[in-house]
Amino acid sequence: MWWTPQALTSLLPTHKKLFAYIPNSMFANVFLRGWCQRGMVRRMTTYSSAWEHVGRFEELLGNKGGVLTEEDDIQPFCKDWMGQYGGNKNVVLKPNSTEQVSSLLRYCSEQKIAVVPQGGNTGLVGGSVPLHNHEVILSLSRCNKIQSFDSTSGVVTCGSGVVLEDLDTYLADYGYRVPLDLGAKGTCQIGGNISTNAGGLRLLRYGSLHGTVLGAEVVTGDGRVLDMRNSMRKNNTGYGLHHMFIGAEGTLGVITNISLLATRRLASEQVMFLAVPSFVSAVSVLRQAKEELGEILSAFEFLDQKSLDLVLEFFPDYRYPLSINDNNDNFYVLIETQGSDEGHDIDKLMKFLEKAMESEETKVKDGTIAQSDVQRRDIWRLRESVTLALGKRGGVYKYDFSLPTAEMYDLVQEVDQKIKKSNLDDGTMVVGYGHMGDGNLHLNVSAPSRTPFLSDLLEPYLYQRTRDMGGSVSAEHGIGVMKKNYLGYNKEESVVRVMRELKGLMDPAGIMNPGKVL
Amino acid sequence: MWWTPQALTSLLPTHKKLFAYIPNSMFANVFLRGWCQRGMVRRMTTYSSAWEHVGRFEELLGNKGGVLTEEDDIQPFCKDWMGQYGGNKNVVLKPNSTEQVSSLLRYCSEQKIAVVPQGGNTGLVGGSVPLHNHEVILSLSRCNKIQSFDSTSGVVTCGSGVVLEDLDTYLADYGYRVPLDLGAKGTCQIGGNISTNAGGLRLLRYGSLHGTVLGAEVVTGDGRVLDMRNSMRKNNTGYGLHHMFIGAEGTLGVITNISLLATRRLASEQVMFLAVPSFVSAVSVLRQAKEELGEILSAFEFLDQKSLDLVLEFFPDYRYPLSINDNNDNFYVLIETQGSDEGHDIDKLMKFLEKAMESEETKVKDGTIAQSDVQRRDIWRLRESVTLALGKRGGVYKYDFSLPTAEMYDLVQEVDQKIKKSNLDDGTMVVGYGHMGDGNLHLNVSAPSRTPFLSDLLEPYLYQRTRDMGGSVSAEHGIGVMKKNYLGYNKEESVVRVMRELKGLMDPAGIMNPGKVL
Ligand SMILES: Cc1cc2nc3c(=O)[nH]c(=O)nc-3n(C[C@H](O)[C@H](O)[C@H](O)COP(=O)(O)OP(=O)(O)OC[C@H]3O[C@@H](n4cnc5c(N)ncnc54)[C@H](O)[C@@H]3O)c2cc1C
Ligand SMILES: Cc1cc2nc3c(=O)[nH]c(=O)nc-3n(C[C@H](O)[C@H](O)[C@H](O)COP(=O)(O)OP(=O)(O)OC[C@H]3O[C@@H](n4cnc5c(N)ncnc54)[C@H](O)[C@@H]3O)c2cc1C
Repeated sequence: MWWTPQALTSLLPTHKKLFAYIPNSMFANVFLRGWCQRGMVRRMTTYSSAWEHVGRFEELLGNKGGVLTEEDDIQPFCKDWMGQYGGNKNVVLKPNSTEQVSSLLRYCSEQKIAVVPQGGNTGLVGGSVPLHNHEVILSLSRCNKIQSFDSTSGVVTCGSGVVLEDLDTYLADYGYRVPLDLGAKGTCQIGGNISTNAGGLRLLRYGSLHGTVLGAEVVTGDGRVLDMRNSMRKNNTGYGLHHMFIGAEGTLGVITNISLLATRRLASEQVMFLAVPSFVSAVSVLRQAKEELGEILSAFEFLDQKSLDLVLEFFPDYRYPLSINDNNDNFYVLIETQGSDEGHDIDKLMKFLEKAMESEETKVKDGTIAQSDVQRRDIWRLRESVTLALGKRGGVYKYDFSLPTAEMYDLVQEVDQKIKKSNLDDGTMVVGYGHMGDGNLHLNVSAPSRTPFLSDLLEPYLYQRTRDMGGSVSAEHGIGVMKKNYLGYNKEESVVRVMRELKGLMDPAGIMNPGKVL
Repeated sequence: MWWTPQALTSLLPTHKKLFAYIPNSMFANVFLRGWCQRGMVRRMTTYSSAWEHVGRFEELLGNKGGVLTEEDDIQPFCKDWMGQYGGNKNVVLKPNSTEQVSSLLRYCSEQKIAVVPQGGNTGLVGGSVPLHNHEVILSLSRCNKIQSFDSTSGVVTCGSGVVLEDLDTYLADYGYRVPLDLGAKGTCQIGGNISTNAGGLRLLRYGSLHGTVLGAEVVTGDGRVLDMRNSMRKNNTGYGLHHMFIGAEGTLGVITNISLLATRRLASEQVMFLAVPSFVSAVSVLRQAKEELGEILSAFEFLDQKSLDLVLEFFPDYRYPLSINDNNDNFYVLIETQGSDEGHDIDKLMKFLEKAMESEETKVKDGTIAQSDVQRRDIWRLRESVTLALGKRGGVYKYDFSLPTAEMYDLVQEVDQKIKKSNLDDGTMVVGYGHMGDGNLHLNVSAPSRTPFLSDLLEPYLYQRTRDMGGSVSAEHGIGVMKKNYLGYNKEESVVRVMRELKGLMDPAGIMNPGKVL
């Protein structure tokens, strides 16, 4: 139910007679909707319990295994990847068609049952799990059919529940790849990626999902099916409504099918790993790479010394690929290229490396170019395992900021000072790594466990500093519940108001992923 | 067309007693808005004449030359580029700031004055000019300041009125370019490009504007300023509302400022021109180019024999760059590459050309690689001048379809047959050219003049065939007024309804570019 703490409570008694003339449904649908859209109203959590409707859900899904209610079955769906957010006693629904999603959402809208869409549940801002009990988790895992692929245009159309890695493997047979790649690829779903507008490892080269998602079929919160799939590379017929669902984190409706522009899998893929003495050097290396590797540059990632040490500590069979080992607080840079001619690419890389080793600016201390697929994988997993190593070490505070590249690491150093000053003496430490080529810093604080003291030390300070440095509080993970209070740091009130109005259009009953983003 | 709350009041007598209880503003803002959003209400063209408000406009703009009313001054703004659409007695307003745009739109909303935003007025679907008299043309030409450029991230922020070529020239000094390029670059504005979601010559390489426009400042139809400029490459904080304005053709509001991701200007730019015996061969050349030129391919354009002949006829000083001249209904392909190493690129191109000349599939008859900037320009202008040559020849019917690449030219041949069958004997002919690499065909019919007979011969037939072939009736030019009746060929009714609802949110008074798109 939508509610008006300030305006409506004061209005209602005095205007009782007036409202008596307006039929109930009109009141709910029209009057309140109008107000909600102007952002004047706040939601009260008066949802009806999903448990009271299990029978109806079973009727609507009509298939075995589509409705999960047993504790053991629903457990993996109820907690988020970080183990930090979640509700209990939820009902998990697994529709296998757009029609089922539509009838479920229509019913949940009518009955006011809260619905949380869920893909692979690898999101890092608590968006994919209910915050309360007795809600519906709508899992897309059965909407996982690949419908068509056109190897001339590169357009693939598939269900939103297809696992990212599966889609990539499918495309590999045709000499194509998904433009997006990220550490969680074995679990996350393409629909979840689109709903978080995931960035990942190769955004630098292949751009954001707004450029590559050509269309989608979605079901709005009130159950309307909007089929905006699109097999054409270019289609300028009316508003690009599907873009509203890219990064909406399940708050407007459910993405059921998608049309994506795959990218060609090029013959030559090279990986280089460098050690530099300072972040300033890393910035110079980035500048040189953008200039000299130009069109073949496909990823530029960085790790600080502590990030690398952590990976080597928690994955003892991983190999450190350089000869230098001076324990000198180095910074490490992973550069990947993708091109169509191996000879040309190696030539570019060798010239690049030679210059970078000699230059006074880049000051590269040591570097290696991987010689085989195994070596390439070994280098990549040093970078991709930072998140996992941090998870093994204890409690983690994960931040995902966009910052002006040159100043990015200042923030890590500031936090380092703050921690040192607190004399915690329990191994609490800060690490910095991330998609440096896109100006995206993953700042993580690792501690034996998360504590109120640490939380207060870090927040809202980190968000404020990011805002003040002209950055974004969420480069790629989204807002979810974790950053809800800081949305205003990057979006003006007038913009948030229009977001609410849009939400009112798509999800008039306010059932979609309540408590997230807005 | 939309009814307005005000206009609807006239319908109310029967419900007077009920509605009398509802205060006026609540009625207008809440009740009717609810209806409008569900697409139940239609607009009546009861706009007030812009001429009655010239005094107020002068007050609001407060600067000399901001309000044009003299026939000679307003003439160039009132007719579209094709000379096909337009109104008379319009008032041209030239605000120079967001605040001015906002106060104008707020005022026009209150007074119900129709407003047509206009950039460079090069649009090809009649979207940039009023369809009626006495409307406001809001020219963005004074909102043309470049505000900032960050040479590390490549993000440029500027007014929407900056001319595309000027922006490109500005960026060239920093070694960057606008990812978009098109024949009208000397006149069209970046805000107009974004409003039409223009594709152009290098979409194949640099992707659509949805990928490269990182943010925008817009003023909605009711005058609200939404500042969504964004200097960060990645910023996942809330819905990507600015995407709604990409391709909205001025129907939701006015784009005042933009943040765009510029792309690096690479050292080596090569242009190749090939003659092939058939469209089938051209398709094979495309396949080979995508495979072998991979990451350096930056444009793949085609012209049929008649298109080329037209250019050489109307621009007699242009040179035909090949030795073969067999007048054999050839097809011509322009391939451009951009890369960071000239040696590598030439090497790739030579290998490509050699193979293409020998292959049984591609059957290239003749080909040349330009050796200098002048030669490159000379080849490019053969392709870019087709539109201009057609304009010089007489009446033109311009179509801009997305089609499955392999079948694209079938449609040209069908039209050719239709024309032949009609025994017109007046030089009426059809030509095909366009952005073949993106599946984008420009099918144009040239005749001494446009006639009802020809119009009926071509429409709705061409739109229907495009739909039936699974294509898009507008690859890049947009809907405007020209294709309004065919929007439904690519957008389901449920989607069009949500477009209307969105329009109701952004432009509740329905003043923005009436009669266009929806
Ligand atoms: C090891 C690891 C590495 C990661 N690396 C990156 C990285 O490099 N870049 C990056 O951007 N992110 C990264 N992430 C986080 C990233 O957001 C997720 O991995 C991924 O995009 C989420 O997909 P998912 O299917 O798991 O979605 P979920 O976690 O299930 O859901 C995410 C959000 O989307 C909504 N949602 C899911 N599916 C749908 C749907 N079909 N329709 C509507 N809403 C839906 C949910 O409600 C939720 O709000 C990483 C996470 C992990 C664990
Ligand atoms: C010779 C020639 C070649 C062309 N080549 C191509 C091509 O290769 N690819 C392609 O896609 N198109 C091409 N076009 C058409 C193309 O749409 C336009 O050239 C260009 O994108 C429009 O920009 P403009 O500034 O002239 O906009 P206008 O024509 O002034 O306006 C176009 C639309 O956008 C709206 N609009 C303009 N500015 C704003 C604003 N600031 N805020 C809100 N709405 C606004 C208008 O109301 C109108 O609906 C070509 C046109 C010509 C004449």
